[in-house]
Amino acid sequence: MPQKAMAESGLDGRGAVLDNSVMACPPSPFGRPLDLEGGRIELSHGSGGKSTQQLIEELFGQAFANPLLDKRDDAATVDLSAVAGTGRVVLSTDSFVVSPRRFPGGNIGSLAIHGTVNDIAMAGARPLHLAAAFILEEGLALAELVEIIAAMAAAAREAGVTIVTGDTKVVERGKGDGVFITTTGVGVAPAGVAPSADRARPGDVVLLSGPIGDHGVAILSARDGLSLSASLASDSAALNGLVAEMIAIDPDIHVLRDPTRGGLAAAANEIAHASGVGLHLDEVALPVRPAVAAACEILGLDPLHVANEGKLIAIVAAETADAVLAAMRRHPRGRDAARIGTVIEDPDRFVQMTTRFGGRRMVDWIAGDQLPRIC
Amino acid sequence: MPQKAMAESGLDGRGAVLDNSVMACPPSPFGRPLDLEGGRIELSHGSGGKSTQQLIEELFGQAFANPLLDKRDDAATVDLSAVAGTGRVVLSTDSFVVSPRRFPGGNIGSLAIHGTVNDIAMAGARPLHLAAAFILEEGLALAELVEIIAAMAAAAREAGVTIVTGDTKVVERGKGDGVFITTTGVGVAPAGVAPSADRARPGDVVLLSGPIGDHGVAILSARDGLSLSASLASDSAALNGLVAEMIAIDPDIHVLRDPTRGGLAAAANEIAHASGVGLHLDEVALPVRPAVAAACEILGLDPLHVANEGKLIAIVAAETADAVLAAMRRHPRGRDAARIGTVIEDPDRFVQMTTRFGGRRMVDWIAGDQLPRIC
Repeated sequence: MPQKAMAESGLDGRGAVLDNSVMACPPSPFGRPLDLEGGRIELSHGSGGKSTQQLIEELFGQAFANPLLDKRDDAATVDLSAVAGTGRVVLSTDSFVVSPRRFPGGNIGSLAIHGTVNDIAMAGARPLHLAAAFILEEGLALAELVEIIAAMAAAAREAGVTIVTGDTKVVERGKGDGVFITTTGVGVAPAGVAPSADRARPGDVVLLSGPIGDHGVAILSARDGLSLSASLASDSAALNGLVAEMIAIDPDIHVLRDPTRGGLAAAANEIAHASGVGLHLDEVALPVRPAVAAACEILGLDPLHVANEGKLIAIVAAETADAVLAAMRRHPRGRDAARIGTVIEDPDRFVQMTTRFGGRRMVDWIAGDQLPRIC
Repeated sequence: MPQKAMAESGLDGRGAVLDNSVMACPPSPFGRPLDLEGGRIELSHGSGGKSTQQLIEELFGQAFANPLLDKRDDAATVDLSAVAGTGRVVLSTDSFVVSPRRFPGGNIGSLAIHGTVNDIAMAGARPLHLAAAFILEEGLALAELVEIIAAMAAAAREAGVTIVTGDTKVVERGKGDGVFITTTGVGVAPAGVAPSADRARPGDVVLLSGPIGDHGVAILSARDGLSLSASLASDSAALNGLVAEMIAIDPDIHVLRDPTRGGLAAAANEIAHASGVGLHLDEVALPVRPAVAAACEILGLDPLHVANEGKLIAIVAAETADAVLAAMRRHPRGRDAARIGTVIEDPDRFVQMTTRFGGRRMVDWIAGDQLPRIC
């Protein structure tokens, strides 16, 4: 809507914030407040001057307000002493370039929170603070940015993390694509908890927290304007709560991994490669929603290669597998968790799968560019 | 050069890495190694699959190698216990979109290290670890990426920081602009050291580490292909060593700020605004190189608004100002440091300057889009 209104008004957005003197507005330290409904991002919002300050104050500052961010320093000083006596601090970063920016189940803002929260959680750590950096394209509707920021703020609140520092850059029209967001998180890991891709051992059990392929299929469906199924929605969600329950049962979980870009196949191969083992999966045990399976058929995709944004693989010792699986199923984000395979000795580090017809096939990494800009 | 060679060879880069079976190459776990001289970024490098792994292993992994990054987890676990008994951890993030990507004195890679190292240093902290996230445009010459990565690795080494985790995304041709880099740093601040923009007090002294305007003028000169002066070069440099020397003299430095985007004027106004004070600067004391002053004349710029990437402002108590200034001048990055003004009481929070002709003028924030994509 705001884009349409903008086009109809004949404004190109340049200079509108400071120069348009028609409307009467409440006072602001920056003169006229940002026009959050009809305004657009201008190059001046990236100049480091007054317009940049205004964007930060009236948009990011409002949505993400917390004592650390409110100091407006270029860096945030976070106090981890209460939670990290041992100093095991976990750091993770991800850029988000998903296209389209809005999709069933979320937008680039919520995704940017979930993705980084989950990477921290996959290290067995409790995510605490995020930094958020925005690369905005000149001409982006402020109304859309408001929507994205609101989704980020809500997702951060729900995941229990604060956005403590950030950055905003603006690039010329045609040199970006609306919004790119890079989030970087810090968290702390309890002593003795150190899941890592290189810790899978033969005999371990492979658990999956729920059905695969939802995010990727939802994005592709939204991208192509396909009406594949009304029930397709991204699974984008924060998994730190689920991980905390799992760690409470077994602090020595060997591997945690969220199968995002590249799907379960990429995550499984990365683990096999890093640990020097093989994985043996069971297709019958692998949960895939019927609507996702149908969409994959139509799109010619293998659900194993399709991105997820609210699922995890856990590799645990055989002795604790049942208890961890039960804990997962008690949590809303792991209700449909399943035991999907085992770790085997294999000098070739292959990921293999027993198909539903009883045959065996290799599960390889996706090689090409099947699914660009899925996250 | 690589771009020209590429165009002449008639390759558009798509599929060249995996499909070109003409050349004989040494074995690699990914099949043919990346063609770092003639190759280009393809969408598959962002797929999360084998091509992404290959890019990470053969390019980023080689250049940034360290034990934390070598684990190839999605998050890095950093041990801060030896340095941060009190848990005062500092976090800062910045996206770099500078255009052109190469300029006299550096490139986007070295700048991405210096910028974030300096933001951490400005919090009085010792920068330790960086996360680096790349948004690459399809078609980017791998040879240029190699050059950028090499500059990052060298700058990180020189600044004494390690790149412990990262991310790579690829966007379609025309949806980005070669390379955008977001770096996020963590550092630790010694107990009692807490410079912040809100701590300037009337009577404090304003110090500047050296001449202003070098970075911005060098970028503009490179951008427009102007041959303004052979001696114009960016001042891009890491300031953590200089800050450590200053803190050794006065742990209670009130404010540290690097005047990047928006220049000294923006930094001064941010400090005045945050601290609720006025600043009074002295133009005669303000160091500006003759070549920069001349270029600013030609370009119609005020050096006070031009970005710096290797300078800092310090605001210190009057009693320690001379000793801090002397320490700055002993350090290579502060050789031309100067006392440029004082903090005054001013409910209007104005930044004023006594001009070289004895008059007074206001130093305001830059309002427009004078200098887009300067960092």
